[in-house]
Amino acid sequence: MSSPLTPVLEQIENDFDNAVERLQTFLKIPSISTNPEYKSEVRRCAEHITNELESIGLNATLHDTIGHPMVVATDDSAGENAPRILYYGHYDVQPVEPLNEWEHPPFDGVVIDGPRGKRFVARGAADDKGQLMTFVEAIRAWKQIHGSLPVRVVILLEGEEESGSESLVPFLTEHKDALQADTCIVCDTSMWDENTPAITSRLRGIVYIEATLHGPSHDLHSGGYGGAVVNPANALTKILGQLHDDDGRIQIDGFYDDVVEVSAEQVAQWNALGDADALTLEGSGAKAIFGEKGFSTLERLWSRPTCDINGLFAGYTGEGAKTVIGATATAKISCRLVANQNPKQIQNALFAFLKDRTPIGCHWDFKDFGASPAIAVPTNSPWLTAAIESLTKVFPNPTVTIGTGGSIPVVGEFQEILGIDTVMIGFSLDDDLIHAPNEKFEVTCFHRGILSHATILEAYANITP
Amino acid sequence: MSSPLTPVLEQIENDFDNAVERLQTFLKIPSISTNPEYKSEVRRCAEHITNELESIGLNATLHDTIGHPMVVATDDSAGENAPRILYYGHYDVQPVEPLNEWEHPPFDGVVIDGPRGKRFVARGAADDKGQLMTFVEAIRAWKQIHGSLPVRVVILLEGEEESGSESLVPFLTEHKDALQADTCIVCDTSMWDENTPAITSRLRGIVYIEATLHGPSHDLHSGGYGGAVVNPANALTKILGQLHDDDGRIQIDGFYDDVVEVSAEQVAQWNALGDADALTLEGSGAKAIFGEKGFSTLERLWSRPTCDINGLFAGYTGEGAKTVIGATATAKISCRLVANQNPKQIQNALFAFLKDRTPIGCHWDFKDFGASPAIAVPTNSPWLTAAIESLTKVFPNPTVTIGTGGSIPVVGEFQEILGIDTVMIGFSLDDDLIHAPNEKFEVTCFHRGILSHATILEAYANITP
Repeated sequence: MSSPLTPVLEQIENDFDNAVERLQTFLKIPSISTNPEYKSEVRRCAEHITNELESIGLNATLHDTIGHPMVVATDDSAGENAPRILYYGHYDVQPVEPLNEWEHPPFDGVVIDGPRGKRFVARGAADDKGQLMTFVEAIRAWKQIHGSLPVRVVILLEGEEESGSESLVPFLTEHKDALQADTCIVCDTSMWDENTPAITSRLRGIVYIEATLHGPSHDLHSGGYGGAVVNPANALTKILGQLHDDDGRIQIDGFYDDVVEVSAEQVAQWNALGDADALTLEGSGAKAIFGEKGFSTLERLWSRPTCDINGLFAGYTGEGAKTVIGATATAKISCRLVANQNPKQIQNALFAFLKDRTPIGCHWDFKDFGASPAIAVPTNSPWLTAAIESLTKVFPNPTVTIGTGGSIPVVGEFQEILGIDTVMIGFSLDDDLIHAPNEKFEVTCFHRGILSHATILEAYANITP
Repeated sequence: MSSPLTPVLEQIENDFDNAVERLQTFLKIPSISTNPEYKSEVRRCAEHITNELESIGLNATLHDTIGHPMVVATDDSAGENAPRILYYGHYDVQPVEPLNEWEHPPFDGVVIDGPRGKRFVARGAADDKGQLMTFVEAIRAWKQIHGSLPVRVVILLEGEEESGSESLVPFLTEHKDALQADTCIVCDTSMWDENTPAITSRLRGIVYIEATLHGPSHDLHSGGYGGAVVNPANALTKILGQLHDDDGRIQIDGFYDDVVEVSAEQVAQWNALGDADALTLEGSGAKAIFGEKGFSTLERLWSRPTCDINGLFAGYTGEGAKTVIGATATAKISCRLVANQNPKQIQNALFAFLKDRTPIGCHWDFKDFGASPAIAVPTNSPWLTAAIESLTKVFPNPTVTIGTGGSIPVVGEFQEILGIDTVMIGFSLDDDLIHAPNEKFEVTCFHRGILSHATILEAYANITP
């Protein structure tokens, strides 16, 4: 007896050119959530994807929030005894600066040739529009062929993932019942490589702050005052220069107190995955591996916390020379956290690190851009096992279980508020340039991603929650 | 017998309202020389002042250069036996950023009420359009009353003072004969306070560079790569944080080798001038005095070299949070130099300081924005003495001899290329906010400045060069 999956996979092949075009249309909407100037574009993007989900035959609703809209779509055609799966993705994107480094405009939605075949080049191509469209297209194909889905589905698409998710917790709390599901699939992570699919079981948390050091009341002429008053730019570099010692250890008080060392067995498993140093150098364009002394690259990325300056500005930043002492100096600083570290505690320790070093006569302004813990998901659930098997069917190589250096706070919120564990399945590659100019998403990853989700839908139908 | 100066001083009083309006018109031209977008405005400003000088009856010429125009105006009506005086000023201005901090638009040329009476508020009000107009208006009054001047005059107005003066040396070299004079007056310095005029006898030199540290080939997601590759913003702060030790001593190799200590007598004289700490705090809005251990504020400003970060930028500098590791991090750095320090040697030592600390896999791009030595002018010349006496006649308090923390490279070039010593006379105040938002120039300073220059013109006629 032929499986109901077979015609779905055929439909995906037949409709694939249209799926590429649909993603291109989606990518053309500049849904930059962190910049208030793009508020109406973010909303237009939410409306677009709501219409898309409705046109597939889902029951889709755009929900206004105090920030950007949430989109929820459901399909309960599988009947009340079928498992219910919550899918999560985000339709908002990162800012595009520096714009002049893009080889194609970030919102033209182009598909160009690359070393691995065709690729989408656009802000949001891999993070996360291209990824969320993999499950949307899989669901579309099932609906087109069978008129129904093998499992019940609820899709939640967020518009604030790149800007602090301020509406997420209130929304999950308010819509807790409507969002109930047996498991969740978050599609916002990477594969090991283009032929090796991966399930992500460890996520780092994050604390993100902005700190502005105030010195003189206004910008000063560096000739008239240089040497006799504090220069906040000098002072800020002196303070931030103490964040790491020469071995790359972070010097914030108590920073490592709650960090749990990863087992030697786990480290060995990771290090056997392949040449992570080479992948990291290739993906980053860096000329040397760098980091905390005594750890391998995968340990540094998946099991060690960080402290990175993400933005820095003071004084005159235009072309040429200006002999100015700026009144303020600002740093945007984030820490990636690992399992067991308390985000609020780390945030306070970071603030204290800065305050303890305040130069005489200066003061700080601090901004809090969010704090979320690291996640380690259970690796023995039937949902995880079925997903691993499904991916292995679609890809040339078997599925591997990995960590990721990034943070997906929603996974923690789903656990805490909805009581649901997440399976993190993603089709991005390390060289997709997410958050950077020339972000791309391989068409082959998009294609295999759709096939994978179609396969998982069938596999999940056979699980008794 | 009534002095020929008397009717000139009367004419200055009678025409003063018009002089204020003429300066306002001059201030409305946005002659920002460092920003290529303003090139045509800089030229328009040069044309405006050329026309102004011609209308007074001077022989004025606009000279094109590889950068911005030079304006030269002469009047030899005093006859070939009269002393010849070279006047220097600059008609270009600093950039205006941050624009939102200006209470009046920087190029509206407004005159508003302040605690010391009326004041001009505009970019360039004190630095240097308002100041150069003091001698232009004095010359105008002499010409209006007597049809001629008591001395021969050559005026040189530069348009690149705020952007590195790249055309100055070639221009001085080419026009050496036409610019010959017995002494030079540079009008670009400050008074001790509004009632106490000052002649400046010490100027600091300057070295200004831009250094960009390159790490990864492109901006990276701080989750995907944080901890495993170098973050140039982290690295740059670590390097720049080492520029000063905890006593404020600069750590660049050999930095202080050629610094000549100032005599205890000189220091005592400076410290007797008044409460420099209070003036510095008031002018800067800083909450505490700060600087190299073991020196007073005036020593720090007039006789100690500095190293200041004038600009700093890396990663994401817009609103909100972006989880990025920037591919590069940049600092604009200047050192103020004191007499006997070799600018090129200091510049090389600064480059070496940075290079010696290059993180593994990184490289630098350096830009050179100029290097000029400090100046100490002879304090016993008849030109200086006559200027001191003239200023004392106009102001309530006697003239004092001071240093300045700023750099006026042209003073060194006049000495080196033309063989002329300079008398530095200025009417700016420490709280004029030059190079900062809300730059201003007191109308009373403008007024007394014009009277001073008219008086000096007569005094100089009696000196035999």
